[in-house]
Amino acid sequence: MYIVGVDLGGTFFKVGLVEAESGRILRKVERETLVAEGGERVVSRMAEAILEIAQGYDVQGVGVGSPGSIDHDSGIVRFSPNFPDWNDFPLGPMLGKFTGLKVYVENDANAFVLGEKWFGAGKGYEHIVALTLGTGVGGGVISHGVLITGKNGIGAELGHVIIEPNGPLCGCGNYGCLEALASATAIKRMALEGQKKFPESLIFKKSSVDAKAVFDSAREGDALALNIVERVVNALAVGVSNFIHVFNPEIVVIGGGVSRAGDILFKPLREKVEHLVMPSFKGTYQIVQSPLVEEAGILGAASVALQFGKI
Amino acid sequence: MYIVGVDLGGTFFKVGLVEAESGRILRKVERETLVAEGGERVVSRMAEAILEIAQGYDVQGVGVGSPGSIDHDSGIVRFSPNFPDWNDFPLGPMLGKFTGLKVYVENDANAFVLGEKWFGAGKGYEHIVALTLGTGVGGGVISHGVLITGKNGIGAELGHVIIEPNGPLCGCGNYGCLEALASATAIKRMALEGQKKFPESLIFKKSSVDAKAVFDSAREGDALALNIVERVVNALAVGVSNFIHVFNPEIVVIGGGVSRAGDILFKPLREKVEHLVMPSFKGTYQIVQSPLVEEAGILGAASVALQFGKI
Repeated sequence: MYIVGVDLGGTFFKVGLVEAESGRILRKVERETLVAEGGERVVSRMAEAILEIAQGYDVQGVGVGSPGSIDHDSGIVRFSPNFPDWNDFPLGPMLGKFTGLKVYVENDANAFVLGEKWFGAGKGYEHIVALTLGTGVGGGVISHGVLITGKNGIGAELGHVIIEPNGPLCGCGNYGCLEALASATAIKRMALEGQKKFPESLIFKKSSVDAKAVFDSAREGDALALNIVERVVNALAVGVSNFIHVFNPEIVVIGGGVSRAGDILFKPLREKVEHLVMPSFKGTYQIVQSPLVEEAGILGAASVALQFGKI
Repeated sequence: MYIVGVDLGGTFFKVGLVEAESGRILRKVERETLVAEGGERVVSRMAEAILEIAQGYDVQGVGVGSPGSIDHDSGIVRFSPNFPDWNDFPLGPMLGKFTGLKVYVENDANAFVLGEKWFGAGKGYEHIVALTLGTGVGGGVISHGVLITGKNGIGAELGHVIIEPNGPLCGCGNYGCLEALASATAIKRMALEGQKKFPESLIFKKSSVDAKAVFDSAREGDALALNIVERVVNALAVGVSNFIHVFNPEIVVIGGGVSRAGDILFKPLREKVEHLVMPSFKGTYQIVQSPLVEEAGILGAASVALQFGKI
């Protein structure tokens, strides 16, 4: 069975033809989103890409992972920070009309956890907590096999759970959200804040000051970098242990750019979480790095069609 | 239709005959639990009370709300802090054998949220977050109509979500859990901690130093009491806004002894939560005091049978 997954971003969109049984991406294209051209033009170019890629295959449906707040049932984008004109924009219906295919739309972080369930680390599990640590921190939860989106479809905002009420200001206006403590943006901010006190840190000798520079420097024993990694791990450990106490999941999957740090992040994180969870929760869960990497976006999007299309 | 609800506590158990359609408790008895006599004797006396109260009625099932960690499917109590011998104790099967009735067992905080859904403030809702603020802080969640208990049935531990990583020590061994900041026990602790600095506080002129004394004194303008109430409200507001961001619920119901403080607690709590939630969440939820009061235990227990008995 063949499904098309569309990973919609503010700068590029990616379209992939997915073989559902194997999770293989048989073909894919990446195009510029060109938001400024207006919603209908964007959707029209998405439709072209979908039809190109679907040619010669009996495609059963299209799944779209879109940033922003999505009304899943109707396929309408309520609003999306990087798509300023997309207020109550009928992305799903319009894309369905332009392609003649069944289209299912979900928020990209929810698509990520679905991708892990259908094709990634969450296969066979009914209780999955997923975090994407990128520019922001996204969250997706499957509990008792159900994608937890809440009454208005806007739940699972795990990145905006407050971890430190007196912590740094978050983009959302609150202080100490997980996003303000463990996103790539937060890591970069911490590096720049530390520059005055640690001007000689290895971080500032890398090609650019970013999360990767911090983790690379930490591996080389750099004091500022190690301090930042510790703060990130501490915040993540509180967040993850909270989610474990709330959802009692089988698995916590962490993806996004920051997750590529690998062991230097995951090893201390696993230790701290296991220390923080109550005795009855010890040993009940795994914490794993997303195995999907580059393919997470397209596979997550395709999973939206599999989860909701009953196809 | 008639159901029996059993509210099992460490000191007393209460048994009530519930008319399911109206939520009326037609008869009830309260007996000492006498844990020290051993599990089988306790269950035997529970069974006697159930059969007494059921006499003359066609009872369709028995629901039990029990403290501790419950394997809902089998009715087994895995462990329960106030029942030291009840490790893997077959409460449900034994009570079923002794009464000849179908028995459904669930953790008491989960029973509380079910009670709110079937008989209380959550009627007609599919997305409910419930907190009980008593000696400890219990949590129960219904999301998409599903009782969220997780893989091992031990989830929804909302009282052990960490609110302030550097906050006071909690009974669970962590620091700054909601339970350590907003339970009756925490409120009493804060009063006693303040006694040295505020020996003349009205709190210490009440018949006993407890949560009620703190709220009563706060209503009279007492400085220490007002400070404690503010700290409790701040902690609760962070917790509740986190749960709103995670579950996007229609309603947050707060019960337990502390909730009886009423407006002095709920009014500032509602204001702070509405301030903390992100724009898309504003106005999407209510925060209400549990209307069930004294009957919450029996009605919650009866709801366990209604929810899981398909009766």
